[in-house]
Amino acid sequence: MLHAMREDGGPGRVTLAQVAEEAGVSVSTVSKVLNGRQDVSPATRVKVEELLQNHAYQRTQRSSQEPALVEIVFHELESVWAMELIRGVQNVAKANQVSVVLTETGTRHAPGPDWISGVVQRRPLGVVLVFSSLPPAVKKQLRARSIPFVVIDPAGDSEPDVPSVGSANWSGGLVATRHLIELGHRRIAIITGPRDMLCSMARLDGYRSAMSMAGLEIDPELIAFGDFHVESGRTQAGRLLQGPDRPTAIFAGSDLQALGVLEAARLSGLRVPEDLSVVGYDDVPPARWSSPALTTVHQPLRQMAEEAVQMLLRLRTGERTATRLELTTNLVVRRSTAALVEGAARPAASGLARP
Amino acid sequence: MLHAMREDGGPGRVTLAQVAEEAGVSVSTVSKVLNGRQDVSPATRVKVEELLQNHAYQRTQRSSQEPALVEIVFHELESVWAMELIRGVQNVAKANQVSVVLTETGTRHAPGPDWISGVVQRRPLGVVLVFSSLPPAVKKQLRARSIPFVVIDPAGDSEPDVPSVGSANWSGGLVATRHLIELGHRRIAIITGPRDMLCSMARLDGYRSAMSMAGLEIDPELIAFGDFHVESGRTQAGRLLQGPDRPTAIFAGSDLQALGVLEAARLSGLRVPEDLSVVGYDDVPPARWSSPALTTVHQPLRQMAEEAVQMLLRLRTGERTATRLELTTNLVVRRSTAALVEGAARPAASGLARP
Repeated sequence: MLHAMREDGGPGRVTLAQVAEEAGVSVSTVSKVLNGRQDVSPATRVKVEELLQNHAYQRTQRSSQEPALVEIVFHELESVWAMELIRGVQNVAKANQVSVVLTETGTRHAPGPDWISGVVQRRPLGVVLVFSSLPPAVKKQLRARSIPFVVIDPAGDSEPDVPSVGSANWSGGLVATRHLIELGHRRIAIITGPRDMLCSMARLDGYRSAMSMAGLEIDPELIAFGDFHVESGRTQAGRLLQGPDRPTAIFAGSDLQALGVLEAARLSGLRVPEDLSVVGYDDVPPARWSSPALTTVHQPLRQMAEEAVQMLLRLRTGERTATRLELTTNLVVRRSTAALVEGAARPAASGLARP
Repeated sequence: MLHAMREDGGPGRVTLAQVAEEAGVSVSTVSKVLNGRQDVSPATRVKVEELLQNHAYQRTQRSSQEPALVEIVFHELESVWAMELIRGVQNVAKANQVSVVLTETGTRHAPGPDWISGVVQRRPLGVVLVFSSLPPAVKKQLRARSIPFVVIDPAGDSEPDVPSVGSANWSGGLVATRHLIELGHRRIAIITGPRDMLCSMARLDGYRSAMSMAGLEIDPELIAFGDFHVESGRTQAGRLLQGPDRPTAIFAGSDLQALGVLEAARLSGLRVPEDLSVVGYDDVPPARWSSPALTTVHQPLRQMAEEAVQMLLRLRTGERTATRLELTTNLVVRRSTAALVEGAARPAASGLARP
């Protein structure tokens, strides 16, 4: 029911019967592999998948009565990014009368075998994956079934054979830091993300280049690493703001870390932006809602998701498409940054924290 | 393909052929209606739907090869609630090996005809709707196809014939206000939501009862209405904080409005909680991330969504289930509220706002 056997493969096309013959199995076994059934031995599955992929097997046209789906897969929905990405996927899906299936894998990097068999059953037009890396086995399974996929913002090494959409992290780090330099700040700290994510290293390198190009010394004491969440922003800023020669500005690496910096400033009795300038990164809604509203680097998350779905739909029709699309980032100036005032670099006042 | 004809209806069961005969149409027309096809006249559709509903037509058991879906429908994904609800739906769906289809209708109250025909094609186990009211036509269409549905947190009049999950808004307003009274506040303002939403009226009535029960006068000047978003919290609090006899505490009606109150306080030179206590409502993630973190009323959004899906799955099996489930709300004390200090009710200092 979920597959259509191709009686006549046409020139250059393969039929299920041909695949079955080459693999030395029955047509029904090939069909089981295509439909993600579990009652096939792993060895047979691998053999059939390889043949399907080698022959670039194309399913027949889907019936107009079949629901058209795209899938978006997150490893966790916790992230404040998730809603922006979902909305981008929804926008393009709605315009194309396609429904959206949402999956949270719960694992850090890749979806499991349950997910793959579910996808094969649902037979979507394509899959948008939001995580760092895709295991070769999953790539192979999707390709064997001609289900196109696109990865959004791979934070790890981007793989040359996987279509992906990202944004310009290095430039983002550069413009954030330049903005602070132009406001007269010299003691500028950065709290970037984890050391093992390319995006956080790119933002740090953008900071370094902006400092160097302005002839400013880079003080290793002013470079901190967080995990992109609120709490690490608070902890790292708490440490940075304690010294006698505290920074007058912090580039916080993410909006959530910037919210943590605001709380650290409040606990240190520092006003933002009068005593401390703060720049976020991402421009997710909480950046607009914070007090003061955050100056931040806009990462076009919704547009990234829109591009990813459009890329999928193009891949579906066999159109050639760029393997890696990188969208621009730009600075949004709100109320958390101000020109350096003489004497603002005073040591932090005694804390106002309640126990 | 998406329906299964019942050759033998069994006792009390109706077959498609019987429905066709009664309606005076062909079996294929009945099947078209069941599958949401557009090539059926409206009059025929209505007649067939009524017969199906009257006979409580049951589709045959779905094939194990068919993907099991539940649908969640929002009128807009903008709301910060949306992610919490999605996560709740995901939790139960994952535990039951069911996939989630997400739809944003873009209209304020109800999904359109495109959506209905899509649902009928996708044949989900059930539908969770997140909006105020469901038009009778949509109810009828879903019922005619035996697709169960549950509404989450209807803000309008809850309809007795629609299973729904909400939370205790009146109690929430009561505990928020009592908390402020216990801290010694007497001049307590409320910014509730729109006048035409039951939840905002219930929260206001909870506030009134808490004040009355404590023997406190209710000053109509201290009652304001917003739209649950940040900007209306800022505007209303800006007005409330201007007078000579300003409130020392504000119950903000929603977390987003509370964020707006924090910004209004900052612009008025008031520190939270030293000069002004603020209580939110909802306990969405931005409440934890704000500076200071918000004392708020926890609305169990994720659990409400979990209950809604579980209700669906029970409805699916024909189990009787409560029509209206109301979950408890409770106060979460963080850092935005403090005991009233003598002299804190001073007029607001001159603003620190930048132009």
